[in-house]
Amino acid sequence: MTEMDRREGLSPGVAGTPVLVTGAAGFIGSHVVSELLERGYRVAALDDLSGGFRGNVDERATFVEGSVLDVDLVNGLFDEHRFTYVFHLAAYAAEGLSHFIKRFNYQNNLIGSVNLINASVNHDVRCFVFTSSIAVYGHAHSPVTEETPAIPVDPYGVAKLAVEQELRITREMFGLRSIIFRPHNVYGERQNIADRYRNVVGIFMNQILRGEPLSIFGDGTQSRAFSYISDVAPVMVDALSRAEAYDQVFNIGAGRTYTINELGQAVSRSMGVPFRPRYLPARSEVQHIHASHDKANSLLGYESRVGLEEGIDAMATWVKQVGARESTRFTAIEIERKLPTAYKSD
Amino acid sequence: MTEMDRREGLSPGVAGTPVLVTGAAGFIGSHVVSELLERGYRVAALDDLSGGFRGNVDERATFVEGSVLDVDLVNGLFDEHRFTYVFHLAAYAAEGLSHFIKRFNYQNNLIGSVNLINASVNHDVRCFVFTSSIAVYGHAHSPVTEETPAIPVDPYGVAKLAVEQELRITREMFGLRSIIFRPHNVYGERQNIADRYRNVVGIFMNQILRGEPLSIFGDGTQSRAFSYISDVAPVMVDALSRAEAYDQVFNIGAGRTYTINELGQAVSRSMGVPFRPRYLPARSEVQHIHASHDKANSLLGYESRVGLEEGIDAMATWVKQVGARESTRFTAIEIERKLPTAYKSD
Repeated sequence: MTEMDRREGLSPGVAGTPVLVTGAAGFIGSHVVSELLERGYRVAALDDLSGGFRGNVDERATFVEGSVLDVDLVNGLFDEHRFTYVFHLAAYAAEGLSHFIKRFNYQNNLIGSVNLINASVNHDVRCFVFTSSIAVYGHAHSPVTEETPAIPVDPYGVAKLAVEQELRITREMFGLRSIIFRPHNVYGERQNIADRYRNVVGIFMNQILRGEPLSIFGDGTQSRAFSYISDVAPVMVDALSRAEAYDQVFNIGAGRTYTINELGQAVSRSMGVPFRPRYLPARSEVQHIHASHDKANSLLGYESRVGLEEGIDAMATWVKQVGARESTRFTAIEIERKLPTAYKSD
Repeated sequence: MTEMDRREGLSPGVAGTPVLVTGAAGFIGSHVVSELLERGYRVAALDDLSGGFRGNVDERATFVEGSVLDVDLVNGLFDEHRFTYVFHLAAYAAEGLSHFIKRFNYQNNLIGSVNLINASVNHDVRCFVFTSSIAVYGHAHSPVTEETPAIPVDPYGVAKLAVEQELRITREMFGLRSIIFRPHNVYGERQNIADRYRNVVGIFMNQILRGEPLSIFGDGTQSRAFSYISDVAPVMVDALSRAEAYDQVFNIGAGRTYTINELGQAVSRSMGVPFRPRYLPARSEVQHIHASHDKANSLLGYESRVGLEEGIDAMATWVKQVGARESTRFTAIEIERKLPTAYKSD
């Protein structure tokens, strides 16, 4: 513990403790990095920049450009830094697209996770924090609780569930402890608004900046509880110091649901334009879902605090500063059949 | 339909219909190949010979040496042969070892399956027959039925379950039909008795041929229902022509359970030697499991017919002909911790 740590009131258990964050240049990952640094952890920030941006990563972190699929790189990082904790957020999180890129999905989201789990066992990591997803619940009746049977309906959800099971098995077999979060529909500053396949809030804002109508699959009555980033990243980091959190799974995110139409209206208002939807053929997706947060509330004192309007306004302010981005396109489609037109053309 | 087909009474729906069998040089796969050929199908037999033997493959099949992980090879085969049906049996089926080779397990057993599922969607395959495993049930209370919640307790079971979910999702999204079998503890002629990590019947027979004691993890009171190959392979092939089988999951295999000690006694008697066990430290495994076959019985008229003594005698006759094999060892261990000594040394 350094003199500076003492002055800043950091506990000896935290100051300088080495933590790996994967997907660290991505949206949620970059916020987790900042939260960890604020609390005095030493952070190695791994990202392959496939979806994230170097500029998202707090300068106090050690940035490493590379993929969780690179086994030698991963093992080398563990050898060098001797991580006490791992936050694994690297993933390609496009539920709708995952049907058409199954192999890519399982490679990135499952094999990449397994590489980290292997290294965490081999290097005695104290806790592995994993961001799963509400996608594991599939068409389950809402509100979903952590006890609701997980029957995912897209390859992305299958991969997330497999990693959850892998972590349970690895705890039973090797004693690696873990905390699993299932956040849902997270939005906020640093989100990649250029990704046309995921994060509807960012997609809407980018479309408004480009003067385009808001693309909505189906009639826009499907509903979600959109969660602002400050209701997600801090609780994930705080969980490290709560014994009750270990070996548990938690839903986290906002409690109130809005339809996609309502979201489009809120985003349009916040961006100062009229709501101008463009309705597209419905795609295969879950119609309504929201989650119970009773478990996080009772074990972690969790409460989501930021309402949709407040969160959207904060994100819109940021988006107006960074401006529109050229919408990127995924090129390695594995199945073309039934690929929504919106995924194909510009 | 050729004149010869007509003479042999083959239905026009079967004669010459192209079928892909993966893992075709392996134990169950090679029997599936023979069953298909007997019924008049045209068979492409894919195997990378990592666990199987070229000599297992019926000469009437078109043998292709290669891996389901080779995407270009897989797609090329589908382009060339226009398969109507796929039997996917290629897998590395070592439950106990899978804890220590997680990445290898998911690559072989999940990514390999996904390559075939992609190709089957893209080439309009009529039915994808998948051999899952009783391993998906984990520690579930016996008898397990197809409705028993699947909570696997080893990476092998997680991978099999993920493929089952992937097939359900692919049916919902793309209409690919499938039949899933969950066989258990299958033994018989053509089993790879040199594999020290799987197939206890073969391991025991090989040890007897080599004059070694029978290695038993724990006290040998764990129980399984050992299933003779002729109670497994034919029903998988017959299912193709039964509408009731499509889009279903079936347990198949023997009904009666035996302890590992009882199995050791039966194998020793059949091989003509006294039962000489060598008890090793227990490993992480399911203690007792057996499956209900009511669903296969009611929908497919399935009944297992071969008792343990009869099946063991048939296999022992074959084993005595082929002789002992040098026990192979898996070299790419990913986690050394807690690796059973029996997996390491000779």
